[in-house]
Amino acid sequence: MMDSITIIGLVAAIFTTIALFPQLMKVWRTKSTKDISTGMFSLYCGGVLLWFVYGVFLNDFPIIIANSLAFIQGVVILVFKAKYK
Amino acid sequence: MMDSITIIGLVAAIFTTIALFPQLMKVWRTKSTKDISTGMFSLYCGGVLLWFVYGVFLNDFPIIIANSLAFIQGVVILVFKAKYK
Repeated sequence: MMDSITIIGLVAAIFTTIALFPQLMKVWRTKSTKDISTGMFSLYCGGVLLWFVYGVFLNDFPIIIANSLAFIQGVVILVFKAKYK
Repeated sequence: MMDSITIIGLVAAIFTTIALFPQLMKVWRTKSTKDISTGMFSLYCGGVLLWFVYGVFLNDFPIIIANSLAFIQGVVILVFKAKYK
């Protein structure tokens, strides 16, 4: 059985992974990205890609899946940013 | 000495922690937050706060410091979002 510390870590991972989704829906709906920082989402995508590599090396499924989802969402936001300036 | 997998994890942590900084500077400079999702930064702040608690339980200094910095930046962005609609 998981202890409460592991559960806190998992809930933390779920929160930070789904965080990008409302932003993604917002740019999808509004087609407006003026206030969004390209620097932020570029660094973020680079970071979660490295977390993904880290997870692959450690063979850690939660790290792999959480960061794959975060990377995909971050890249889509960057594509919107490039398309709708 | 640190192995290369640990170094990948540390660089990943640095990237995802400093990612919010360009966004923070952008809202500071432009005073415009229309395209920023409150949902995203609320979930993000909740998530990194839980990561912080997780780090405190594990007594893991990198997790504590990275998520403290991320939380502070996220909260400041939310304050700007509330102030400049």
